[in-house]
Amino acid sequence: MTPIMPKHDAAAHVDSARIRQGRTWAELADHLGAPLVWTTAALLGQHPMTAEQARSVCDLLGLDEAVAESLALQPSRGTPPEVMADPTIYRFTEALSVYGPALKALIHEEFGDGIMSAINFTVDFARRPDPDGDRVVITLDGKFLDYRW
Amino acid sequence: MTPIMPKHDAAAHVDSARIRQGRTWAELADHLGAPLVWTTAALLGQHPMTAEQARSVCDLLGLDEAVAESLALQPSRGTPPEVMADPTIYRFTEALSVYGPALKALIHEEFGDGIMSAINFTVDFARRPDPDGDRVVITLDGKFLDYRW
Amino acid sequence: MTPIMPKHDAAAHVDSARIRQGRTWAELADHLGAPLVWTTAALLGQHPMTAEQARSVCDLLGLDEAVAESLALQPSRGTPPEVMADPTIYRFTEALSVYGPALKALIHEEFGDGIMSAINFTVDFARRPDPDGDRVVITLDGKFLDYRW
Amino acid sequence: MTPIMPKHDAAAHVDSARIRQGRTWAELADHLGAPLVWTTAALLGQHPMTAEQARSVCDLLGLDEAVAESLALQPSRGTPPEVMADPTIYRFTEALSVYGPALKALIHEEFGDGIMSAINFTVDFARRPDPDGDRVVITLDGKFLDYRW
Amino acid sequence: MTPIMPKHDAAAHVDSARIRQGRTWAELADHLGAPLVWTTAALLGQHPMTAEQARSVCDLLGLDEAVAESLALQPSRGTPPEVMADPTIYRFTEALSVYGPALKALIHEEFGDGIMSAINFTVDFARRPDPDGDRVVITLDGKFLDYRW
Amino acid sequence: MTPIMPKHDAAAHVDSARIRQGRTWAELADHLGAPLVWTTAALLGQHPMTAEQARSVCDLLGLDEAVAESLALQPSRGTPPEVMADPTIYRFTEALSVYGPALKALIHEEFGDGIMSAINFTVDFARRPDPDGDRVVITLDGKFLDYRW
Amino acid sequence: MTPIMPKHDAAAHVDSARIRQGRTWAELADHLGAPLVWTTAALLGQHPMTAEQARSVCDLLGLDEAVAESLALQPSRGTPPEVMADPTIYRFTEALSVYGPALKALIHEEFGDGIMSAINFTVDFARRPDPDGDRVVITLDGKFLDYRW
Amino acid sequence: MTPIMPKHDAAAHVDSARIRQGRTWAELADHLGAPLVWTTAALLGQHPMTAEQARSVCDLLGLDEAVAESLALQPSRGTPPEVMADPTIYRFTEALSVYGPALKALIHEEFGDGIMSAINFTVDFARRPDPDGDRVVITLDGKFLDYRW
Amino acid sequence: MTPIMPKHDAAAHVDSARIRQGRTWAELADHLGAPLVWTTAALLGQHPMTAEQARSVCDLLGLDEAVAESLALQPSRGTPPEVMADPTIYRFTEALSVYGPALKALIHEEFGDGIMSAINFTVDFARRPDPDGDRVVITLDGKFLDYRW
Amino acid sequence: MTPIMPKHDAAAHVDSARIRQGRTWAELADHLGAPLVWTTAALLGQHPMTAEQARSVCDLLGLDEAVAESLALQPSRGTPPEVMADPTIYRFTEALSVYGPALKALIHEEFGDGIMSAINFTVDFARRPDPDGDRVVITLDGKFLDYRW
Repeated sequence: MTPIMPKHDAAAHVDSARIRQGRTWAELADHLGAPLVWTTAALLGQHPMTAEQARSVCDLLGLDEAVAESLALQPSRGTPPEVMADPTIYRFTEALSVYGPALKALIHEEFGDGIMSAINFTVDFARRPDPDGDRVVITLDGKFLDYRW
Repeated sequence: MTPIMPKHDAAAHVDSARIRQGRTWAELADHLGAPLVWTTAALLGQHPMTAEQARSVCDLLGLDEAVAESLALQPSRGTPPEVMADPTIYRFTEALSVYGPALKALIHEEFGDGIMSAINFTVDFARRPDPDGDRVVITLDGKFLDYRW
Repeated sequence: MTPIMPKHDAAAHVDSARIRQGRTWAELADHLGAPLVWTTAALLGQHPMTAEQARSVCDLLGLDEAVAESLALQPSRGTPPEVMADPTIYRFTEALSVYGPALKALIHEEFGDGIMSAINFTVDFARRPDPDGDRVVITLDGKFLDYRW
Repeated sequence: MTPIMPKHDAAAHVDSARIRQGRTWAELADHLGAPLVWTTAALLGQHPMTAEQARSVCDLLGLDEAVAESLALQPSRGTPPEVMADPTIYRFTEALSVYGPALKALIHEEFGDGIMSAINFTVDFARRPDPDGDRVVITLDGKFLDYRW
Repeated sequence: MTPIMPKHDAAAHVDSARIRQGRTWAELADHLGAPLVWTTAALLGQHPMTAEQARSVCDLLGLDEAVAESLALQPSRGTPPEVMADPTIYRFTEALSVYGPALKALIHEEFGDGIMSAINFTVDFARRPDPDGDRVVITLDGKFLDYRW
Repeated sequence: MTPIMPKHDAAAHVDSARIRQGRTWAELADHLGAPLVWTTAALLGQHPMTAEQARSVCDLLGLDEAVAESLALQPSRGTPPEVMADPTIYRFTEALSVYGPALKALIHEEFGDGIMSAINFTVDFARRPDPDGDRVVITLDGKFLDYRW
Repeated sequence: MTPIMPKHDAAAHVDSARIRQGRTWAELADHLGAPLVWTTAALLGQHPMTAEQARSVCDLLGLDEAVAESLALQPSRGTPPEVMADPTIYRFTEALSVYGPALKALIHEEFGDGIMSAINFTVDFARRPDPDGDRVVITLDGKFLDYRW
Repeated sequence: MTPIMPKHDAAAHVDSARIRQGRTWAELADHLGAPLVWTTAALLGQHPMTAEQARSVCDLLGLDEAVAESLALQPSRGTPPEVMADPTIYRFTEALSVYGPALKALIHEEFGDGIMSAINFTVDFARRPDPDGDRVVITLDGKFLDYRW
Repeated sequence: MTPIMPKHDAAAHVDSARIRQGRTWAELADHLGAPLVWTTAALLGQHPMTAEQARSVCDLLGLDEAVAESLALQPSRGTPPEVMADPTIYRFTEALSVYGPALKALIHEEFGDGIMSAINFTVDFARRPDPDGDRVVITLDGKFLDYRW
Repeated sequence: MTPIMPKHDAAAHVDSARIRQGRTWAELADHLGAPLVWTTAALLGQHPMTAEQARSVCDLLGLDEAVAESLALQPSRGTPPEVMADPTIYRFTEALSVYGPALKALIHEEFGDGIMSAINFTVDFARRPDPDGDRVVITLDGKFLDYRW
């Protein structure tokens, strides 16, 4: 019996079927009734889906059970450095390198010693029309957690 | 004649005076009439200030001209890795490692092949009250730039 | 004749069968009469099992002899950096980065110059109920070894 | 006016005075009425102290105000790699490299998808007598945080 | 159903067919009516082609639909370090290491605080005859983007 | 007797004097009758100046002989990674990461097996007006060197 | 015709056959009449064997000619970092990190400026009984080579 | 009051005084009645000395109390990579890279699953006369520690 | 149609056939009438051969057209770090680490500011008999290139 | 009493005095009657000089005893990576990356399994006139050392 398909391979199956069928990530999120960024991240292997969600997506895309089984698996999260170097992703890293210490200072000023949770956390993605060129608007919304002994 | 003070040292002077005088970053931003995250980042050395802004901040904090001269200098931007590893900053890196490929996919789906600019770009910092614990809300807002030959 | 299956592949077989049969790591540890963390680590490839233990687990999970042979192999221990970057594992690394020098100072104060053994060493995992949210409690218990010439 | 003393220098002052006066970390923690590991970490620069705590420690050790001012500063947390390579600290890294994936698996099995917080988190240090050689017992106790969108 | 062919494999198919048929990159660019450097980069996997461009190149080279499908895929851009170390490519890296800070200084002097876009950007490649040995002339032409809050 | 001033310090003296006197890099190049990019790179420490050039620049900027002596020194060329990560410089690295293999392929196609020299090499910097936003135009012009045994 | 089997694969064949037949490394060394550490290292791919030695070992272990051919190949020596991180191997690295500068100082004091050869060099492995626990005794014996112009 | 002198500086004082007075490491070890490698490593900062040992060495070498205070300090052990690259030290690293996996295999074969302690551990340094050139003989002698849960 | 065989695989075919037929690199160089080091490097994948050279070597060694096609391919040059760590290769790296700055100083003293070309460059390999042990003599001969704007 | 001057500082003193007095490395070598590359490397800190050599060079250059004392010190050899990246030095690294495996193959073919010593080793530097441009000729001459158990 073969082991469960790695999530990386499942993501390739999902993305290939999605492209071939001309479906958008937004359609997949709508189909699941789940948030857009969460759905995309989950299908790319960064979150486990429930068995029902996994099966539902695979039914829609005509993928077999082996893919669904993988989508429901608990992931080992993270992205390899060569993918993080892609220019579209790198801009976020650069912005963090410029604004990271300022955000840290402001979190401490406003909330005290602690962090913005990356676990109790949502990401929203939107397009904002602008006469000088439309804008990508990404909202990070995380619970403040204070250092608490 | 001594060279212009490095921005790293100027930032230490600003932050030390700020703490000793009990002033917040928000007060400094208000004093300048400039955005909060921009002001904090600029005073920490990531953006050049105009000579007027620099002098105004130094007057407020009782810092001498050498600090103002440095604040007006064109920076070499970025943050060293040992600072990026601080837990409060690291959570952003981790979130990017989990959601980066999804954001890339959604930028391409919504806008086509291109990036969110990190130059024509603002960052907003806010506190959102929540009965389960207040939340840090950070909004990244950057112009979409399409790969254009 | 094919060489012995790498422990990494054996771990994938064990984990896949475990998930498909709905068994927990705790059940596998009970089946072996062995400690929970030790059993999980061993089945993930970090400790050699005795031939009897290996066969017993494979019988339970319906895995063939090739898997058992691998589970009994002496491992080359350790975890690759991309797995260590998973958020659930990274929190331990972060905690160590914050408390490591303090723990070193306290070991020297209490015991003298030496180390906590990572070989004569157990790890205990428990859930502690807490009205503010249940807690993960992990106990590291290692023999003190003094630098002894 | 000189900037606030870096926490690294303040830690050297505290540790030097402590050694010269023959005081233990435990005495300093008792003096503050604060937990042992927390106190040691804070004095080594990993946590901010309140102004009162900082002054109280400096009074005890005969250190001047500049040290107290630094101890109250918000830290940039973390430990450089050359210090993490010290054998006494490295054993923790090694244990994590062996048991990290198992702990991740057990957290997911017991609590679901999430992490042990490193912020809402305590560390306890104890000596356990054992006829075969006394043991270092370190307890990590962190709130479980589930991935929650 | 197999996933879409990785762009790295598609590039190997294109380059192999190109060599075996004795075609130049310039002929492929002419065939597409597209710029030379853009076409070469796109066929090597760094830009997505339109479905029409992809099919047209594959028809010319006798490659099947699987290659065309891959050429139209959105890429993850970038080049691994072992390829960047090739002497022909390394000379660009070295030149940047020598002239990078000077170019930064001149961009700021001429345009103010900002960058040369690498997205709204073209690269031209030409041969300039010279009695002392012909010269490679590469022109980088990118829109200036000012830091704009 | 003190050793010769490091070129890094000499560059700080030159840049500080230049800013305080409101002079541009272009004026310094004109003063020397030398190319703009070469002059800027040399004053930043990447090329040795003749003793006459060094003295002439220092006379103009009111810097003493110790700076001139350093400017004439043979440099150890290159830029540290933290400076290469500045966004204005990084865009060149990114462009090279996207177009490097294409440029290599085109050099080989046009010239045969060899490289563009980074030694017999000039860099030109220009501003090109454009109704959609002015553009930075950088021309790299290097002698082709064929692998020749 | 297939190329010669990589030494890494040959080592896996040797070790698998050795384990399945219950043979020790010591028996293999005795069979060859060769030193224990040398034999083990050679069979793991770090030294070339003579064709006779290679065939003799393969005959004993029932391995075919393809393995013997590989064992006789000139190796590319060395061990990848992930294997060096195994705790049993890491202790040697740690000891070297603690005692390396002292050994260098003593070599220079006793022999003058030079090195202990790692080529004209033997390693001996022994067990020394000790009432407090038996000891691993490893003797490194290398010819002194003085820096000689 | 100044903090305790870093051990790195104390080592420079010891070594400088030793050289200027023409004393050998062996004489210092004899003076202390301590093993040669241990003494050398301790004086180079890798082991704490007792206050008596530290004072005795400093008396012999005419060094003041500040050095002795530092020699008695608990060290943070280890050697930076640039020192490990010195050829005399590198040969040990190379030997370990060639023989490390073999030594691991032999430790497991002879003792079972475990390690050679680097804490309960001695290193002996000797010169062995040899007609083909005298030899450096280094004996590592460490207690076997079995993985024991 | 399969892509052209990677040069790494072609090198494995050449080396395997060479060993099985008992031919030396010198014989292959003689067969081609090409320099010894060049031929060896080319067959190991570091230089393109002409189609005639490639076919001639493959005829001699009984290798098929797919290998010849690969040998004629333009290479991506360079050697991965794990191969550079082999002791026989590492000695060159070490010598360069010891003598590199001296060679740079002497090139500048004798020729002025510039480099020894690694492109217009030959390497000669010879054995020099010596009563104290024969010597490897390697001659690097490269055209001086002056920094020329 | 101050510790012995680090060799890096002594090298800066030697080089500064040499430049200010208009002396060449070749004159310094002649003055000592020592080989050119050896002398340059030794004065740059890579070899210990005898006390007589050190004093003789310092007398010639008018440097005081502290420099001479440092030149006679046993060095920790090697060059930091940022210096190795200088283009004049990098060309050697690149050549080694292209020809290293070929040289290894030829050493084994001609001499058997072993290395070219980097200790019993000389480097010769020469200028060879050539109508197409003079050439740098560097001869590495090292004793062959066979792997000998």
